[in-house]
Amino acid sequence: MASLRLVSFKALYRSSSSLCNLTHSPSFAVRAFSAIFSPSSTAIVYTQHGPPDSVTRIIELAPVQLKENDVCVKMIAAPINPSDINRIEGVYPVRPDVPAVGGYEGVGEVHCLGSAVKGLSPGDMVIPSPPSSGTWQTYVVKDQSMWHKIDKDTPIEYAATITINPLTALRMLQDFTNLKSGDSIVQNGATSIVGQCVIQIARIQGIHSVNIIRDRAGSDVVKEKLKKLGANAVFTESELDVKNVKALLNNIPEPALGFNCVGGTAASLVLKFLRQEGTMVTYGGMSKKPITVSTSSFIFKDLSLRGFWLQKWMTSDKSMECRPMIDYLLGLTREGKLSYEMELVPFSDFSTALEKALGKHGSQPKQVMKF
Amino acid sequence: MASLRLVSFKALYRSSSSLCNLTHSPSFAVRAFSAIFSPSSTAIVYTQHGPPDSVTRIIELAPVQLKENDVCVKMIAAPINPSDINRIEGVYPVRPDVPAVGGYEGVGEVHCLGSAVKGLSPGDMVIPSPPSSGTWQTYVVKDQSMWHKIDKDTPIEYAATITINPLTALRMLQDFTNLKSGDSIVQNGATSIVGQCVIQIARIQGIHSVNIIRDRAGSDVVKEKLKKLGANAVFTESELDVKNVKALLNNIPEPALGFNCVGGTAASLVLKFLRQEGTMVTYGGMSKKPITVSTSSFIFKDLSLRGFWLQKWMTSDKSMECRPMIDYLLGLTREGKLSYEMELVPFSDFSTALEKALGKHGSQPKQVMKF
Repeated sequence: MASLRLVSFKALYRSSSSLCNLTHSPSFAVRAFSAIFSPSSTAIVYTQHGPPDSVTRIIELAPVQLKENDVCVKMIAAPINPSDINRIEGVYPVRPDVPAVGGYEGVGEVHCLGSAVKGLSPGDMVIPSPPSSGTWQTYVVKDQSMWHKIDKDTPIEYAATITINPLTALRMLQDFTNLKSGDSIVQNGATSIVGQCVIQIARIQGIHSVNIIRDRAGSDVVKEKLKKLGANAVFTESELDVKNVKALLNNIPEPALGFNCVGGTAASLVLKFLRQEGTMVTYGGMSKKPITVSTSSFIFKDLSLRGFWLQKWMTSDKSMECRPMIDYLLGLTREGKLSYEMELVPFSDFSTALEKALGKHGSQPKQVMKF
Repeated sequence: MASLRLVSFKALYRSSSSLCNLTHSPSFAVRAFSAIFSPSSTAIVYTQHGPPDSVTRIIELAPVQLKENDVCVKMIAAPINPSDINRIEGVYPVRPDVPAVGGYEGVGEVHCLGSAVKGLSPGDMVIPSPPSSGTWQTYVVKDQSMWHKIDKDTPIEYAATITINPLTALRMLQDFTNLKSGDSIVQNGATSIVGQCVIQIARIQGIHSVNIIRDRAGSDVVKEKLKKLGANAVFTESELDVKNVKALLNNIPEPALGFNCVGGTAASLVLKFLRQEGTMVTYGGMSKKPITVSTSSFIFKDLSLRGFWLQKWMTSDKSMECRPMIDYLLGLTREGKLSYEMELVPFSDFSTALEKALGKHGSQPKQVMKF
């Protein structure tokens, strides 16, 4: 995360309090030599790691002086992702030092610019790309290289959430196996946003998807929803408690690639569906149970087990390659070919949104804060 | 196994009983048109799958007529490998149809030749390469393409066993990670023949080996033996019941590659030693326990889990590439750089050798039958 300029409290409190756009706040004094400052920023911060509903608080951060290549962005929307929660808890392997502002992705509008910034203008819609920490605040200042301008017609909730989940789905479909139209994939956790994106992107690419969901009341409704997105088959875990799951595939080819975000039995079910020489990619562990694999799966079935972590991919040499992919995905959302459920909530309702994201109100759609 | 000409009983019993070398058996009649026949063959056969000590028996097979490209080899030695036992039990995924002669590798001497055979002469020392079924008999007839001529100075017990175990070790060291001199590997089941070969071939290549053995009486003696072969570190499983196994590595670099032939806890220990982005290759499951892996091993540690099965490699396009590798390995045995414990037993003592191979007499060296 060397490229991330942490907006630390010390730096913020040292800053003078003039604003970059004086017409909006005529009561503040102008500094000499045209120093440019962001507005003060309302931010969700934590000064220590711990349970997010205990350690986070909303505070007002003082304006920050823009360097010549900095861009100040007025945030429009930002989601609460599981990885945001894990960063606050201190259990995520890569996380900013405390004190820190929460959040990692989002969308905003260019508010004001450092003197040397080119290619961006006030009013442009931008996302931090690759995503970087500190999006849970009203004004974010980062170097111009860290902002990616996007089409203003994009719905804000998709612009705010396009990177972490949909890009994970796109990369996982491309990075592990050379899938061709007509091939199949299998996944568990199919109702997750990544899972829904996998179904839809696979369909666009002519790839069949076999989907595993957990047993729950109303699973028939869930099945229909996923089938409307393009799922070729959807099974609850208990429906797969049979000797030969492949007999259930009917005319769908045996999957060459599997995605696991659950672990435990649900991971074993993905393995059962895979064809000879197939690959299972683990990108989550919602059940908090490990993955158990038979010896013969490796020797005789020649399966490969791999992992995917978008953050690692993002910090590789390839990180800038993400921008055309993001544009592709945002195009799909504008065309209505890629959709998933979210709940837009006012920033002022952060504590309720956080409780929902923490699972304290049962199953809830992805919480996206609107600033 | 399409290339394997199964010497079936039907074919054998149909054959006339003249011999390829009339001077050895003048009492037999010569067929018209100089038909060439093998001698009759004393063979260990099974007509159904089941416990090897119940379903195998020694019988005399009638001579078989050589086709013009056939070579008849008088077997000198052949081992009893675990995969031979699994084939007889009927639990191995690739196995000859019954009735079948046991065995899969071995060494012999060319006895007589079909009329079109070139490049082999009576007295040449040969091994079936790639290995193929039916080596547990005194005379084996196969197409000339299936025999590989080797240096006559090779000790017969190594010639008989060089393919399945040492070649597995060589391939596994080369096929999964680009190891350089100074790198490390970690393995469990280090006392197995593959394990011993891994230690010695790694040492020749300048690669450190970290070795895990099971807890047993006399483990100190075993450790010394493996260190004499070139092991850089040897631990019993209980010695690794610590929070941070890597602290035990001292100056050995964290292993990039691991080999697992045990499963269960012993596999987890290999995973613990692996460095970020490391690969574990499973090639056996001696404990009969599955492999359990945490979600974070895949996502954050980016480990890959793979499998290796020599038989699959042997039936690939690369199968003929094995011959120069075999020559390399046999050279190492002649130079004393590659050794492992075996017990040469007379063919007539097959039933005792089989009991030992089945583990009915405790831990025993590899049984190699001498014909």
